[in-house]
Amino acid sequence: MAQQERARSTRSAIIRAAARIFEEYGYGGTSLAAVSAGAGVTKGALYFHFAAKEELAVAVIEEQHAIASADGARVQALGRPALETMVLVSRGFAVQLIEHSVMRAGIRLTFEATAFGHDVRQPYLDWASRFGELARTAQQDGDLRPDLDPDAFARLIVGSYTGVQMVSNILTGRKDVLERLGDLWEMLLPGVVAAERQADVPRLVGLFRNGRTA
Amino acid sequence: MAQQERARSTRSAIIRAAARIFEEYGYGGTSLAAVSAGAGVTKGALYFHFAAKEELAVAVIEEQHAIASADGARVQALGRPALETMVLVSRGFAVQLIEHSVMRAGIRLTFEATAFGHDVRQPYLDWASRFGELARTAQQDGDLRPDLDPDAFARLIVGSYTGVQMVSNILTGRKDVLERLGDLWEMLLPGVVAAERQADVPRLVGLFRNGRTA
Repeated sequence: MAQQERARSTRSAIIRAAARIFEEYGYGGTSLAAVSAGAGVTKGALYFHFAAKEELAVAVIEEQHAIASADGARVQALGRPALETMVLVSRGFAVQLIEHSVMRAGIRLTFEATAFGHDVRQPYLDWASRFGELARTAQQDGDLRPDLDPDAFARLIVGSYTGVQMVSNILTGRKDVLERLGDLWEMLLPGVVAAERQADVPRLVGLFRNGRTA
Repeated sequence: MAQQERARSTRSAIIRAAARIFEEYGYGGTSLAAVSAGAGVTKGALYFHFAAKEELAVAVIEEQHAIASADGARVQALGRPALETMVLVSRGFAVQLIEHSVMRAGIRLTFEATAFGHDVRQPYLDWASRFGELARTAQQDGDLRPDLDPDAFARLIVGSYTGVQMVSNILTGRKDVLERLGDLWEMLLPGVVAAERQADVPRLVGLFRNGRTA
């Protein structure tokens, strides 16, 4: 038992150390030697958990997706209306991106994943499907336009969000990521919210920008 | 003279061959040997033009940006209203992306550029500034809402467009890129077009989706 727990904690320390190095140097610039030094473990201990750099990169991508999904589930458990949930989930993702190097490293590795032949479709499909469900419910709630295609809206959010945070990273190191993603909601919501719910748009934008409605 | 022209044509053949290989295998999976074979030139001729893989990758990125910028200038020369020009320039970019492997390779290399330490800010800044100018004019024309921040709108287009075409590439190999980018304009325009010009939105969306208003 104690041994299993020690193995889990070593694995987790390796992933955290790898994330810090992948985030700064990318896949190509990261060596397993730097990761074992950063994690304070022997090369033997590192190889016990990860036989190759690719495995380590995939573990960071999976950990990033697990963190983001858990945060999404936390927000959904608040039981807020579906459209508000979409806004809050997207804010949670952005906050995690600012706070956790595993998130930033996972995103960088996802963009670089073609370099190590890793298939990165699943996280995008997961988010498109989760947001598609929420959009369908938001439409039933009367919050989204009745003529909107909920799946197209969900895919648009996933694509736009991915690009906006990526360009924010390139141009400002994500210093303006919350502001730019707030612009996305502010400019997008009037075109997708039902006519009779337009008055709610500023509240939803405020919810993204400030994490609260005030 | 003839010699200069031959050198230019060799350089251009190398860039086209490199684009096909970079597009398929990425930066990490491309060798100079494969490029010289693909271009039908000797390794000596290749090295005369490009001393290292990084230089070749940068040349493809620059050629991609030159093609896209020239197409943007072609559309601007049509002298259409600024908002219509934004829609048509973005359609032109998507069509080039579908038709030219130099475009697709340039985009892939831009995403992978951290792997070879190349600064990719300039193309994003160029597009944000060009679209910012167009958005300012469109606002003066009365086509965009008077309370819209034209620079924020321009940066949103650049970020969203980048992400939507990227996710389309990951999920469908860009088979649905025109449809997804059409969704972007269709869902975004109602929130940014001036109240008294809302009736023009379907025409603008049609212009993107079909390249004409019918």
